[in-house]
Amino acid sequence: MNVITLTTDYGTNDWFVGTLRGVIAWINPHANAVDITHQVAAGDIRAGAFALMAAYRFFPYQTVHVAVVDPGVGGSRAAIVVQTSEHFFVGPDNGVLSWALRHEKIHAIHRLENEKFFLKPVSQTFHGRDVFAPVAAHLSKGVSLDRFGPQQEGLVRLRWPDPKRTRREAEGEILYIDRFGNAITNLHEELLAGFERKRCRIVVRGKPVAAVQGCYEGAPAGKAAGVISSSGFLELAVNGGSAARKFRLKVGDPILVRS
Amino acid sequence: MNVITLTTDYGTNDWFVGTLRGVIAWINPHANAVDITHQVAAGDIRAGAFALMAAYRFFPYQTVHVAVVDPGVGGSRAAIVVQTSEHFFVGPDNGVLSWALRHEKIHAIHRLENEKFFLKPVSQTFHGRDVFAPVAAHLSKGVSLDRFGPQQEGLVRLRWPDPKRTRREAEGEILYIDRFGNAITNLHEELLAGFERKRCRIVVRGKPVAAVQGCYEGAPAGKAAGVISSSGFLELAVNGGSAARKFRLKVGDPILVRS
Amino acid sequence: MNVITLTTDYGTNDWFVGTLRGVIAWINPHANAVDITHQVAAGDIRAGAFALMAAYRFFPYQTVHVAVVDPGVGGSRAAIVVQTSEHFFVGPDNGVLSWALRHEKIHAIHRLENEKFFLKPVSQTFHGRDVFAPVAAHLSKGVSLDRFGPQQEGLVRLRWPDPKRTRREAEGEILYIDRFGNAITNLHEELLAGFERKRCRIVVRGKPVAAVQGCYEGAPAGKAAGVISSSGFLELAVNGGSAARKFRLKVGDPILVRS
Repeated sequence: MNVITLTTDYGTNDWFVGTLRGVIAWINPHANAVDITHQVAAGDIRAGAFALMAAYRFFPYQTVHVAVVDPGVGGSRAAIVVQTSEHFFVGPDNGVLSWALRHEKIHAIHRLENEKFFLKPVSQTFHGRDVFAPVAAHLSKGVSLDRFGPQQEGLVRLRWPDPKRTRREAEGEILYIDRFGNAITNLHEELLAGFERKRCRIVVRGKPVAAVQGCYEGAPAGKAAGVISSSGFLELAVNGGSAARKFRLKVGDPILVRS
Repeated sequence: MNVITLTTDYGTNDWFVGTLRGVIAWINPHANAVDITHQVAAGDIRAGAFALMAAYRFFPYQTVHVAVVDPGVGGSRAAIVVQTSEHFFVGPDNGVLSWALRHEKIHAIHRLENEKFFLKPVSQTFHGRDVFAPVAAHLSKGVSLDRFGPQQEGLVRLRWPDPKRTRREAEGEILYIDRFGNAITNLHEELLAGFERKRCRIVVRGKPVAAVQGCYEGAPAGKAAGVISSSGFLELAVNGGSAARKFRLKVGDPILVRS
Repeated sequence: MNVITLTTDYGTNDWFVGTLRGVIAWINPHANAVDITHQVAAGDIRAGAFALMAAYRFFPYQTVHVAVVDPGVGGSRAAIVVQTSEHFFVGPDNGVLSWALRHEKIHAIHRLENEKFFLKPVSQTFHGRDVFAPVAAHLSKGVSLDRFGPQQEGLVRLRWPDPKRTRREAEGEILYIDRFGNAITNLHEELLAGFERKRCRIVVRGKPVAAVQGCYEGAPAGKAAGVISSSGFLELAVNGGSAARKFRLKVGDPILVRS
């Protein structure tokens, strides 16, 4: 159990991520620290939660996932570690871990309160370095959860926007816009299963803008297509362009699929 | 043979690269995955090919180089692995591997068709995660090429723009503009060997703009100089500034050297 | 002694950093190369020096720190390796290493002149690849300093802007602006120790703009606060926003603390 993933809003302009890696290397020289992303928009807990949800299950058994999007650092929010049947999750208890845990069986949640496992003195503003990275490194060496602090029931959960499904329509919203300008929705492949794929149209602000294709190239260059993204959700894409720009889309915008 | 390099246009805003690393760590926990760059402009096969060409030979014997700039993902392009005397190359057969292979002796090219080595189900849009990363990881564990799929002759090659050389002039073009605004040309050091260095002038749109210097500092601050870049090609640079901005240069623009 | 840190202004758009890692992996396959940052503004030696200073001490005993912000590459500046009681530092002798060394006991400084440890031919423009990375890799394998070149006394030091402290005021300046827009000053926590924290006000261009709080959340959303940053220096922050933007701050601007 030596892989540790890092998902933060620290960016890569400064020394923050490097410092986490230094702390990890110090405590567990055999840890393999892997960046999921550090480009989560500053303080955007939902975007961090989505990135972690999309990536975590592609990591080996007993990976330790650290997610730090933490606008409340130094305030009253708790810090937690969560154990599931396959993985560990470490971060602030502000919802950033919660989407990855939606379909996971949680074995235990403990609060991070034992300062023995922190870097001291703990700064007011950089718990990634002083709390989360050292705890993750100790965890990757086999320290058991109960040593980090008391057990707690449940965790703070971000609302998951449930799509609405009728016989001929599915109504969802945009959850994430990726670097290519693809707009990823909360409409999961399984939800769309009953529709006849060929007849499906994606509707934005009342106007049908795209059919649902097998892949990006299914649409002509510059044209839009609905594609089942690699995370299993329907995404609106433009072949060789940006759907977000073409249709002026942002996170939270409603998306309709009509069949 | 445990080093795996990654060259993509995935960017680092999302979770894509992290996911590749998760897949690699799962299959070969001893692999050392190294980013060449993930900031290739979306779909810019030439830029990806140039980056790989500039970097690959600085990696150890039997490194596995993965390059995924793949606008045709999910379409009809083939996926391949190439073995040379020193290295392995894995990616779509769309030219992105071809510039690195220009001067290499190719031992074998195989198509990636054996789904046993893929992540299943293979998504329509993310072959980096589902095809190229797992194949590279298996390759780094010693799986032989013939197990991935049938052999093929040749591969898709990007046109290499051959410079023209007369007794007193060499005419080339800009192949790449780097982060410092240096404009790297296809005029190789060897091509310029016959010229008397001191008399060489770089000519942009008919106007001589710079002499050829030994290093960036050879020119006064803010002034342009031609420099043999670290990739062996002549580049037009501005000491402490951006040649691309100063001379409004872009990839494909002609560059003349007159002696 | 297998951790090597990398601090450069190479950016991540091109293949430069990947190439350093290739060279390191070739020479020492067991090295753990860790990025501190590659987003130092091109040629900004002070920003590189600050990042290295903020991060280096969180790395394990005998880490090799490589810092390459090197506008004079190929010119007359020396290349050096510095040994302190805990770490090694490798880079151009232009001040980029000097802030990290401010409070360190220096054991020895050697010039990098022995080409046996370089990648040959040494390019004029990419000493990160050809000089600093290979030397760092050899160093991490235990090569002793005297083999790299002759000892020298002292090194080029960047001026450290000493703050002024009177009974009721401390006058400093902004040293660094981070990705969140926090403006980090040269006013160290210890310098402010005598002030009564509650009465402190941060003064920008003659106007008090913020009190000194325990953490970012101490101020209401959108409001400014002075916070002791994780590097020990006072920083001016805006809860959920950018202090640099709100107050139009840049590196070098004066900051006053009045109590």
